[in-house]
Amino acid sequence: MRLVLASASPARRSVLRAAGVEPDVVVSDVDEEALLAELGETSPAERVTALALAKARVVAGRVGTEADDDSPFDGVVIGCDSMLDLEGELVGKPGTLEAARGRWDQMAGRHGELLTGHAVIRVRGGEPEAEISGHAATLVTFASPTTPELEAYLASGEPLSVAGAFTLDGLGGWFVEGIQGDPSNVVGISLPLTRHLLAELGVAISALWASAAPAG
Amino acid sequence: MRLVLASASPARRSVLRAAGVEPDVVVSDVDEEALLAELGETSPAERVTALALAKARVVAGRVGTEADDDSPFDGVVIGCDSMLDLEGELVGKPGTLEAARGRWDQMAGRHGELLTGHAVIRVRGGEPEAEISGHAATLVTFASPTTPELEAYLASGEPLSVAGAFTLDGLGGWFVEGIQGDPSNVVGISLPLTRHLLAELGVAISALWASAAPAG
Repeated sequence: MRLVLASASPARRSVLRAAGVEPDVVVSDVDEEALLAELGETSPAERVTALALAKARVVAGRVGTEADDDSPFDGVVIGCDSMLDLEGELVGKPGTLEAARGRWDQMAGRHGELLTGHAVIRVRGGEPEAEISGHAATLVTFASPTTPELEAYLASGEPLSVAGAFTLDGLGGWFVEGIQGDPSNVVGISLPLTRHLLAELGVAISALWASAAPAG
Repeated sequence: MRLVLASASPARRSVLRAAGVEPDVVVSDVDEEALLAELGETSPAERVTALALAKARVVAGRVGTEADDDSPFDGVVIGCDSMLDLEGELVGKPGTLEAARGRWDQMAGRHGELLTGHAVIRVRGGEPEAEISGHAATLVTFASPTTPELEAYLASGEPLSVAGAFTLDGLGGWFVEGIQGDPSNVVGISLPLTRHLLAELGVAISALWASAAPAG
């Protein structure tokens, strides 16, 4: 059984690989802005879940039509979307050094909630057969970096290109005091939630392990 | 400035590397059983901290004496020791498949507290100059694997050789519903606590980053 990750995120792929699953990556071309505009007023959890589902549907359609007729696609497609809820404001990737510095001025010593929407689609014989979605929220407590530490972190470039201007699995790990919830959800794909969603579709995660060898 | 990790644990080394620090590894030969016997009745936190300190002291002495007189060692030595507190019982590596199965029968659907003792020794000019120690505790909520999932996990061999019969950064990540605290502490070395201990000794963690490139 194959697992297709509908995301270009190297962090999500790393989480899956460390957990024994080697995903195929097929990136969707969902117009996130247009989809969010269509949704209108929705909760942060509904937004990330709708985006995850849109990505998974696009990719599920593509793997179905692109596969060979003699060996139609059999497996699951997983879509994810992450945002940081910072005191009621949903923040994405800062993009610039100045924006990342401003974000850290705001969040140092405080909390944020990392939300990730998840959608899983079971594709059998090339056809989407069943889909399920859900979200997970993890509370993150940020440290207060000193000015030299923050400047060094900004200079690394890492916080500019990630949702919420921090990572848990990179340099940013030094500046997260603790979390409440699932750490893989913070990185971008919650392993326990994904396991529960797969189980609802009749797929045991151990069926997706590439081999019996531990990857950690 | 060099960082020496007084531990053979590949998981600890991976945590540091992902967070931008390339440690030298020098394994201590501390007789843990003898040291624990000497300690007598102590709290779990005191036990892991005493073991971490003993490991760091042995290695700090070694890097001091082994270094060249013309370029004496300048850097920090970090020792760590992890145990899982399962309803008051301190558990280590199960070792056998049967012991790991028994451990999971006990902990599925319940909580455990992962304790890691940390000790940091500043070595300058080949001489230990200052030392500091502390511990971090992270509450872990375990999932309830199905019987086929648990058997596949046991067959992977992973849970047999790790404290508490689970990992957060390997296959075990599927079976941890969530945590309260710092995830790197569960893997074996708490990044935020290490940052605070280093700061007490006048070392900024950004001074230890191998390069400005993000590692996540």
